[in-house]
Amino acid sequence: MNHENYDPDDRIAALATPWAESAIAVIRTSGQGSIEVLSPLIKADLVNQESRKMLYTTLKDPQSGESLDEIMIVPFRAPGSYTGQESVELYCHGSLPGVQKILNLLFRSGFRQASPGEFTFRAFIHGKMDLTRAEAVQEIISSKTGKAQSLALNRLSGVLEKRINHFKDSATGMAALFAIQLDYPDDEVESPPLPLKEIEEIKNGLKELIDSYRVGKIYQEGVVIVLAGRTNVGKSSLFNLFLKEDRSIVSDVHGTTRDYLESWISLGGIPVRLYDTAGLRKFEDSVEEEGIRRTREVMENAHILIYVLDGSIDLSEEEEEMLAQSHPEGKGKRVVVWNKADLSQNRAPAGAIPVSAVTGQGFTELEDALRLQIFADTSQIGAEAVVDSLRQKELLERAFAGVVKVEEAIHNGLPVDVLAMDLHDVLQALGEITGEVSSSDILERMFSNFCVGK
Amino acid sequence: MNHENYDPDDRIAALATPWAESAIAVIRTSGQGSIEVLSPLIKADLVNQESRKMLYTTLKDPQSGESLDEIMIVPFRAPGSYTGQESVELYCHGSLPGVQKILNLLFRSGFRQASPGEFTFRAFIHGKMDLTRAEAVQEIISSKTGKAQSLALNRLSGVLEKRINHFKDSATGMAALFAIQLDYPDDEVESPPLPLKEIEEIKNGLKELIDSYRVGKIYQEGVVIVLAGRTNVGKSSLFNLFLKEDRSIVSDVHGTTRDYLESWISLGGIPVRLYDTAGLRKFEDSVEEEGIRRTREVMENAHILIYVLDGSIDLSEEEEEMLAQSHPEGKGKRVVVWNKADLSQNRAPAGAIPVSAVTGQGFTELEDALRLQIFADTSQIGAEAVVDSLRQKELLERAFAGVVKVEEAIHNGLPVDVLAMDLHDVLQALGEITGEVSSSDILERMFSNFCVGK
Repeated sequence: MNHENYDPDDRIAALATPWAESAIAVIRTSGQGSIEVLSPLIKADLVNQESRKMLYTTLKDPQSGESLDEIMIVPFRAPGSYTGQESVELYCHGSLPGVQKILNLLFRSGFRQASPGEFTFRAFIHGKMDLTRAEAVQEIISSKTGKAQSLALNRLSGVLEKRINHFKDSATGMAALFAIQLDYPDDEVESPPLPLKEIEEIKNGLKELIDSYRVGKIYQEGVVIVLAGRTNVGKSSLFNLFLKEDRSIVSDVHGTTRDYLESWISLGGIPVRLYDTAGLRKFEDSVEEEGIRRTREVMENAHILIYVLDGSIDLSEEEEEMLAQSHPEGKGKRVVVWNKADLSQNRAPAGAIPVSAVTGQGFTELEDALRLQIFADTSQIGAEAVVDSLRQKELLERAFAGVVKVEEAIHNGLPVDVLAMDLHDVLQALGEITGEVSSSDILERMFSNFCVGK
Repeated sequence: MNHENYDPDDRIAALATPWAESAIAVIRTSGQGSIEVLSPLIKADLVNQESRKMLYTTLKDPQSGESLDEIMIVPFRAPGSYTGQESVELYCHGSLPGVQKILNLLFRSGFRQASPGEFTFRAFIHGKMDLTRAEAVQEIISSKTGKAQSLALNRLSGVLEKRINHFKDSATGMAALFAIQLDYPDDEVESPPLPLKEIEEIKNGLKELIDSYRVGKIYQEGVVIVLAGRTNVGKSSLFNLFLKEDRSIVSDVHGTTRDYLESWISLGGIPVRLYDTAGLRKFEDSVEEEGIRRTREVMENAHILIYVLDGSIDLSEEEEEMLAQSHPEGKGKRVVVWNKADLSQNRAPAGAIPVSAVTGQGFTELEDALRLQIFADTSQIGAEAVVDSLRQKELLERAFAGVVKVEEAIHNGLPVDVLAMDLHDVLQALGEITGEVSSSDILERMFSNFCVGK
C-alpha cells in the first residue's frame, strides 16, 4: 500500500454495503467539496440541503442525461460527520449494475475509490475517535458472535481508551514529580515520597489488560476444533449435533462453508470453526494424496482435537495406536469422546466423555470440557475492557516493561533522570495505543485491514 | 403464503442490505406507531426528531440495559415515507451478530419480520406507486446489466404507467360514447362516427408493448448459452475469452458460480449465463452418470448452443455425427464456431464462424452472430417502455383481445351494448395492470417474488 492511498484531502467514495443484490445499497463519500460536486448530479439542490436531512431525488449522469437511479441522499457538513469532514451518503436500490453505474459516475466526478478503513482513518485524523475506538469499528464488523460484538462495542464506546488515559495521567503525574526533582535537585524542600503505590497500580492494570488479550483473541478470532477418529465412529453425527445445538453462525451469502466439511458455530458466544475430517476424507477417492494432506493440515491447525471413539465396540489396537499417533503437537489440545454411549454396556475409558450423538446425552458435558480447554491458559476477565488487537497488546507489554524498569530503578536507588527516561518510554507506548504518537506506517498497516466503506 | 403476511396495519422490520459483513447494514421498519415504539430503545428522543433527519445514538436493550450498537436512526412520518406510512430506518454496523441482536430486539418490541416485497406492497396500498412501478422496484434490484437496470428504472419513473393510462383514457372515452348511444338510442341527434381510428391506435400500442415483452425478458432474465464440442477443441479457452472480453458480472459474494463451469457475462448489455460443458464433464470421473446427466440438462436448457470445432484438424466423421446428434431441440439455436482458425490453412466450413480463442480473431463476429440469434424473434424496440413482467404481458394480451373483439363487433354491425361489454373487459385488464382492480391473491403472488426489505 502506498501512502497516497490515505491522503485525507482527496474526495473518496465506496460502497459501504456488501456487493450483492438487495433492497438497499449505501454509497458513502467524504472529502471537502463533496456536497458541491454531487449537487449537479441530482435533480435537486444539495448545497442548500440541511445537514443530516435526507432528500429523495433522481441521480443522473449530467453528460448523457441518463437517469441512473432514484435515491435518498444526505449531506453531512464538517465536523458533524463520521469522518469529521464534509461527507455525503447515498441510499440507492441494491442493483449491481445500478451501483456500478453510480460508482463510475462518482469516479468520473472527482471522487476516488476509498481504501480499506479510509473513512475511519479520517475519523481518527480529525479527532473523532482515538485508535482504540477506531480499531473497535472493524472488530465490531468482523465479530462472529454476540459476545465478541459486545466486547468490541465496549471498546468503541471508549472503555479501553479511558483506562489507557488513566494510566497516562498517572504516569504523567509521576513524570512531573521527577521533573521537579530534576529541576531542584538541591532544594531545601524534603524529597517527596516515591510513587511506589501508583507504579504498582499501573503495573497491575497493564497486566490485567495484557492478560485479557488471550480472551479477546478467542472471542474475536475464534478457535478451531476438529473432529477426528476412525470411520463409522459417528463424527458426522456429532458434527451435525454441534450445528443443531450451537447453531451455525455463517450464512449462505458468505460462501465460506465448504458444504458439510466445516462450519462456524457459537459455543456459548465463542466462535468455533468446527471441522469434520470425515467430510474431508470424502475427497480422497478422486485425489487421494490431496485429501490426506488437507486432513493433516486441518488437524495440525486445530486448537482442540475432538477424538471420537465408538463406545458400542471395543477399542481396537489400531485405534489405540491411532490415538497415540494423531496426538496433535504444538498448540493443539485434545478432548476424547466416547460416542454411542447409549448403545454400550461398558464404562467409558478414563478421561473420555460418554456422549450419544443420537440422543444428545453427554453433550452439555462435552461443551463444558471444550470451554474449559479453550480458557485453560487464560485468566478470569472481570472488567469490560478486553484487548483483542495484537498491536495494542504489544504496546501494553512495552509499557509494562517500562514500568517494571522504573520500579527496579527506584529499588536500586538509581538517579531520577534514569527514572524519567524509563517513564518516557511508558508514556510513548501508551500514546501509541490511543494514537497520539503513531507513525503513518503503523496507521496505514492498521487501517488496511479494515473493510472498504468503513 | 398466508394473507395475514401482508397485513398493512402491523409494524414490520427487515434487514434491507445483504446478510454479510460490511461497513453498514440498513434495517428498515414501517407501521403506525413505529417511532413511539423505537424511541425508548435509543438514548435519544426519536418522538421529537424531525422527519428525514438522521440522529446518531446508541441502541440499547431496555430490559438488560445492554448497548446493542451505535447507530444512525431516522424517522419518516406519514405520508412522507417509502411505504406512505410511519417508518423508521436504522443504519448500524454491518456486524452479523450485531444485526441479529437488533432484529431480535425489534421482534420483541412489537415488530414482525417483513414478508418479501412488503414495504413496496404498502407503498402500493397507500397510493405511492401503481403496480407497474412497484414491479419495477424488484426488476431494478434483480437486473443483471446496466441496460436491464435502465429499462426497469424507466418503468419505475412511470413510463409504462403513463402509456397504460393513455390507453385507459382513450377506452374510457369510447365507453362514454357508447353509453350516450345506449341512453339515447332513438335520439334525433345523428349517431356520432364510430371510434375506428382510436381503436386502431390502442391496438397498435398494445401490440407494441406485448412485443416488447420478448426483449424485456431477454434483458431481465438473460439467456443461457452453452459451449459444446469434443474435448480439446478449445471450449475452455473460448469460455475464458468471453469472461475476459465481456466480463463476468457475478461477484464472489453471490456464491452462485460453480468455479469455471458457468458465469454470468454481459453481451452488450444482455445478461448471458455462459456454460462450459468441458467443466461439467470434469465431474464424470467420480460420478459418471451424474456428470452426463448434468451436461445434457444444461444443453437442453440452452437458448443458444455454441458448437466448437477444431479448425486445426479435419472434421472427423464422429464429429459430424455428434453435430447431428446434439442439435438442441425446442427453444435452442446453434452457432457453430471454427476455433483455432489461426492454426489452420483451410477455410471454415459453411455456416461456421472462424475464431481464434488465442488471438481473439473473429470474436466480434461471434458476438454479432449471438446477438442476432438472441433477437431473432423479437421486433425492434424504439420506445423506452418495455414490458418484462409476464403478469403485465398477459393482461396486455387480454386487453388486446378485447379491443379486437370491439373492432370485429363494429365491423359486424353488432349493437352498442355488445361493444360496451367488450370494452369493459379491456378497461378491466388495463386496470389490473396498474393495480386499480386487482384481487389480493394476485397482489400477494406478485409481491412474494420480491426480496425481503423492499
